[in-house]
Amino acid sequence: MNNPFFKNSGPFKINDILSYLNLLNINNYKSDLIYDVKDLSSAQYNELTFFHSKKYSLMASQTQASYCLTLKSLKDYLPQECKKIFVDNVLLSISQITSKFYPDAINDNFDSTVKNINEYEFKDKIQHGLNVLIGENVKIGKNCSIGHNSIIEKNVIIGSNCSIGSNTIIRNTIIEDNVNILDGCVIGKKGFGFLPHNKKNLRYPHIGIVIIGENSEIGCGSTIDRGSMSNTIIGKNTFLDNQVHIAHNNKVGDNCIIAGQVGMAGSSILGNNVMIGGQAGISGHLKVGNNVQIGGGSGVIKDIPDNTKVMGYPSKNLRQFLKTK
Amino acid sequence: MNNPFFKNSGPFKINDILSYLNLLNINNYKSDLIYDVKDLSSAQYNELTFFHSKKYSLMASQTQASYCLTLKSLKDYLPQECKKIFVDNVLLSISQITSKFYPDAINDNFDSTVKNINEYEFKDKIQHGLNVLIGENVKIGKNCSIGHNSIIEKNVIIGSNCSIGSNTIIRNTIIEDNVNILDGCVIGKKGFGFLPHNKKNLRYPHIGIVIIGENSEIGCGSTIDRGSMSNTIIGKNTFLDNQVHIAHNNKVGDNCIIAGQVGMAGSSILGNNVMIGGQAGISGHLKVGNNVQIGGGSGVIKDIPDNTKVMGYPSKNLRQFLKTK
Amino acid sequence: MNNPFFKNSGPFKINDILSYLNLLNINNYKSDLIYDVKDLSSAQYNELTFFHSKKYSLMASQTQASYCLTLKSLKDYLPQECKKIFVDNVLLSISQITSKFYPDAINDNFDSTVKNINEYEFKDKIQHGLNVLIGENVKIGKNCSIGHNSIIEKNVIIGSNCSIGSNTIIRNTIIEDNVNILDGCVIGKKGFGFLPHNKKNLRYPHIGIVIIGENSEIGCGSTIDRGSMSNTIIGKNTFLDNQVHIAHNNKVGDNCIIAGQVGMAGSSILGNNVMIGGQAGISGHLKVGNNVQIGGGSGVIKDIPDNTKVMGYPSKNLRQFLKTK
Repeated sequence: MNNPFFKNSGPFKINDILSYLNLLNINNYKSDLIYDVKDLSSAQYNELTFFHSKKYSLMASQTQASYCLTLKSLKDYLPQECKKIFVDNVLLSISQITSKFYPDAINDNFDSTVKNINEYEFKDKIQHGLNVLIGENVKIGKNCSIGHNSIIEKNVIIGSNCSIGSNTIIRNTIIEDNVNILDGCVIGKKGFGFLPHNKKNLRYPHIGIVIIGENSEIGCGSTIDRGSMSNTIIGKNTFLDNQVHIAHNNKVGDNCIIAGQVGMAGSSILGNNVMIGGQAGISGHLKVGNNVQIGGGSGVIKDIPDNTKVMGYPSKNLRQFLKTK
Repeated sequence: MNNPFFKNSGPFKINDILSYLNLLNINNYKSDLIYDVKDLSSAQYNELTFFHSKKYSLMASQTQASYCLTLKSLKDYLPQECKKIFVDNVLLSISQITSKFYPDAINDNFDSTVKNINEYEFKDKIQHGLNVLIGENVKIGKNCSIGHNSIIEKNVIIGSNCSIGSNTIIRNTIIEDNVNILDGCVIGKKGFGFLPHNKKNLRYPHIGIVIIGENSEIGCGSTIDRGSMSNTIIGKNTFLDNQVHIAHNNKVGDNCIIAGQVGMAGSSILGNNVMIGGQAGISGHLKVGNNVQIGGGSGVIKDIPDNTKVMGYPSKNLRQFLKTK
Repeated sequence: MNNPFFKNSGPFKINDILSYLNLLNINNYKSDLIYDVKDLSSAQYNELTFFHSKKYSLMASQTQASYCLTLKSLKDYLPQECKKIFVDNVLLSISQITSKFYPDAINDNFDSTVKNINEYEFKDKIQHGLNVLIGENVKIGKNCSIGHNSIIEKNVIIGSNCSIGSNTIIRNTIIEDNVNILDGCVIGKKGFGFLPHNKKNLRYPHIGIVIIGENSEIGCGSTIDRGSMSNTIIGKNTFLDNQVHIAHNNKVGDNCIIAGQVGMAGSSILGNNVMIGGQAGISGHLKVGNNVQIGGGSGVIKDIPDNTKVMGYPSKNLRQFLKTK
């Protein structure tokens, strides 16, 4: 699928990309066109990916990307046919190239294309409040409701039978059918991702989006950030309570129940039928299995296998937690 | 008091209620009219209640309801004169019946009756910002102030000398005198209550309201959900800091001080003069006594007696907490 | 610098101040004019300060204030030339005097001077959304962007190249260059400070402001309260994620990274290059050194020296935390 939210300015010639990074074209890559930048698992032929940590060596070994930004020390994990471009700071370089492909994805300035919903022809097909602002090219299904002062930015896609509350902002998001998003949410802003730099941190572009599965509900005052390279996903029939924060690149499964004030740091994966008690926190880059129950207030800092109940900080098996307290 | 927010579509005949639940009328209840559905302690003659857990057996034994949805195994806790209706899933059945009595209480779509405050006659009696939206039948006392972009939905009652901030949404709520509600709050939306169901969770109706006692203050970005059957109550002279979440059915006492980012799961009771430090969490269905002090970051998972200081996760006596750390 | 946000109604004669506090003028202070009230370290000649706890005895010994409200038991810590005024409740008395000097600083009613940005001459110099409200005497630098429905209250100063999101409220704040404030924030409201009183808590005036250093970023739904006597400060190049709460009087250093849902209670000081993981909490009146790393979910209840990694609740040295769990 083409990314409906960020325009790809490519393709670019590989030699132009190298000179943009101030690299010598030692392998004399000249004529190849690079069409897109993607992560290791989704990149295809004529696309550029990046590989910066041994942690991802399995994915690296299977990548189908034509080119990969990486470190010399990691080169042997990559397939032979994948052309390696060695850089000193992989994340910095991929950030620079992504910005070249997607210059609009760095800043999250407000959408200047929005107009009052009353200026659109579909205004009568949607039950809407006052001062509802809609960006260009927004698609909204049948039988939807949008509350007062809410802002649906350009290109957002909303399914049928959805209810959006008041004072809510939605951008870079695809919402499936029968979804409720309550008041005061911010969905789809860029993630908290940047390259720390003492004088001025470098923001990297976030070209991922948010996808909210059918029959789900997002509580008041919640924030769901869009992904950097991949997408942030909320599964089907998953309910989030108030003041929940889901950071960029997280994938939440189906039929999950996430209570108030829970926070998920970036790039973790939650299975199906996961229940999380209030104020629990899930660290980044973790895998939580199916049917897991996480007690309120827990701090999860390592993977959790399927069918497990945990509690505590750091979280441990529930029985063990209750015994040692 | 009649519920000013949700119209009661009853009374309904008990035999109609039984057939609505697909139950056989084995006791030949025919002519009785049921006027309302309420919880065990507030239901009266000619009203229907429900009893689903042994935990509430004391209340059950004292109920004055004429009819009660319950399990066969619980029937002996109820008074003899209370007519029992046996169902397989008490919460599911009471949810269905409540939806029949209060069909408007399931969804929280925005209030379509609101108009700009400038269209009301009382506009000059209230100090108000721009783009303030007020629903029909709202009552506001003397000397009140309502900030920009705030939304006061239909039937809300606000006392005198109250200050409502900007970007705040209030519905299904009664606010007493001298209350300050700061910016960006959402007060009175339905609680996070539903019957989990793998393909599509069933939301149950929330017919309770929020009541905020006089001289209280609610900090920025806080959320207070209305009750399901009973009300969510904030006592008099109780101050909440920013980003606090009070879930449905909680009763907070008088003179409490609740610091930033505290969360209370549903149906707990806080005494008077309770102080709660930042980010503490209170589990559901607990009783916290008078003059209790709960340290910042604590996780309270059991009842706390009067005059106790606790801290920790799970919280324990403060002295014990400091000793073991 | 004159406080640009709160008008000083002084000077007042010291004998008038004494009688306002119902104190006898036992030292026959008559003609002295008091020009301002400030904290121990910033008060100057002809200004009044207060000293209520031995904890601040070092600062007290160096104060340059002409007068100081204090307890008899603390008088020997103050310089001889500083004239002592003994009261029973220092905080209550200084609160009353501050209210006399700054009567506008007690309540945070919405700014009634705001107008739609389209009514200002500078409207074309700012990239702005719809329904943007700006108070009188606001100063905004070059190349700024302000999103829909945001409110910039009177006297706020915004530097160049700043981006303010949508649905954000800013008051009593100075923002330096290149700052991003994302959607749904509330910056500059009064802190959660008051004198508990059983029937009706006494709010004390907050005459401090918020200062946000250049190149910083504030995530969605965050709240930063202004100081009571001193200012709340966010350093340069410091990034806050979503739903962070920074209470009054906190000073956050430069180049800090503060993840989602972190909360800081009042009057703490964070050094430079501090990293704080998600949902961590920092108690009030603490000093966290430079280059400190605080793990996600930690509860910091005592000072942390420079260059330390901590985690846990209460937080301890990281290695120790991992070992004992």
